[in-house]
Amino acid sequence: MGNKQILITNDDGIFAPGLAALVSALTGLGDITVVAPLSEKSAVGHAITISDPLRVQEISKDNRFFGYAVNGTPADCVKLGSRCLMPVRPDLVVSGINLGPNTATNIIYSGTVSAAAEGTIMGIASIAVSLASFHSSDFSFAAGIARRVAGEVLQRGLPEGTLLNVNVPAVSPEEVAGIQITRQGRGRYEEAFDKRVDPNRRTYYWLTGKRMILDEEPDLDDRAVLENKVSITPIRYALTDESFLGELKTWDFSLQE
Amino acid sequence: MGNKQILITNDDGIFAPGLAALVSALTGLGDITVVAPLSEKSAVGHAITISDPLRVQEISKDNRFFGYAVNGTPADCVKLGSRCLMPVRPDLVVSGINLGPNTATNIIYSGTVSAAAEGTIMGIASIAVSLASFHSSDFSFAAGIARRVAGEVLQRGLPEGTLLNVNVPAVSPEEVAGIQITRQGRGRYEEAFDKRVDPNRRTYYWLTGKRMILDEEPDLDDRAVLENKVSITPIRYALTDESFLGELKTWDFSLQE
Repeated sequence: MGNKQILITNDDGIFAPGLAALVSALTGLGDITVVAPLSEKSAVGHAITISDPLRVQEISKDNRFFGYAVNGTPADCVKLGSRCLMPVRPDLVVSGINLGPNTATNIIYSGTVSAAAEGTIMGIASIAVSLASFHSSDFSFAAGIARRVAGEVLQRGLPEGTLLNVNVPAVSPEEVAGIQITRQGRGRYEEAFDKRVDPNRRTYYWLTGKRMILDEEPDLDDRAVLENKVSITPIRYALTDESFLGELKTWDFSLQE
Repeated sequence: MGNKQILITNDDGIFAPGLAALVSALTGLGDITVVAPLSEKSAVGHAITISDPLRVQEISKDNRFFGYAVNGTPADCVKLGSRCLMPVRPDLVVSGINLGPNTATNIIYSGTVSAAAEGTIMGIASIAVSLASFHSSDFSFAAGIARRVAGEVLQRGLPEGTLLNVNVPAVSPEEVAGIQITRQGRGRYEEAFDKRVDPNRRTYYWLTGKRMILDEEPDLDDRAVLENKVSITPIRYALTDESFLGELKTWDFSLQE
């Protein structure tokens, strides 16, 4: 019975302060190995790298080995870390702390959550942690939450295929209105494109958009964060629309026309 | 009441033969606009491009305008196509025809399916079509299936948020054992990394792996394709693990230790 093995990754890159805060928070829960993208990989979704070779670089901080930087995506880091870089298979994958919320429809675009999803695909208990701010640099409260959730998961385990998606409001600890177990909302960005012309007179587009909260139910992830609650959602990539199977079987797909 | 507007995209890139086959197959069902990645974007998952500008190039074939090539991902193509490049919002998004199956756990990595998912996020009926072969170049039977499914969807519509994921076995039409409405399997790749040393003596890794079918149930997508059936799965990104919510609410997340 050795120590628990914990793989820590993120999508903001190995030098992100949210990653350092997570490493500090989980110290003592087990043996930590950091495997993270060399550069920022936000909004990469569940991309994996199959057409290019992956390279690994050992990164030091304060003259000590800190972790492995990979020229790939968060999902690549989890695969390569647990198969090649760690001495044994991890007991836990923790991804974060992301700068920016990962709630509602946006979960599908999230590199942070995809790293945790990759962990669950490999049968490893996994957690994604995000701070709902795009500019805050105070990760201390979110780090405390990460440690608490990681401790519970190490002790109790998770159902196979299910990860925990944790979103922490960016307010001072006194303003936090508790912890809520939530469901994924349906809110999404209403995107727009900013069309511009470059100095060479070529057109280009920037993706922009504003967040829409479409939901009113009180137990949804983005609603909870808006109300200054810590949101914890059990997420599972079981994608079949079971409720539509019956009707679809009545459709006529015969090829004779 | 004008013609139906159809956006066609893929992840193999605008010059892929599977895309050309899909365009031919859907001709006559409505006004077609092709918006596809300039280069191959397989396994990009649901990535979107937020840190770089998107550029659009008009592509001609046989001296006629064929479609728009975008330096982005399949999801970018659907967003940019329906917001900026098409005269009106599309009634239908069709993504494919992918070379290679998109079934079971692999759906999560698929650029082809992510393009259809992006369509459903925008409220547009969407279909992903894949041919279960990595080397066949005969898309004619799969193209016929794509037309049949697209016709049904244009006539009947789909539930909001649900897409159809179609996988066609790579056998001759006489060998096809029918069409089956299926559920997503849990099969996945058992990945491995091929560790090599480059001419400059630097280590690198290639992701490899072999497909595992973990399931035995007869109505699952990869099982159906293996049995030479056309698989049609209704897919929905409703990710909450509803069955675990109750137990999770009994966990102790209090921060006092």
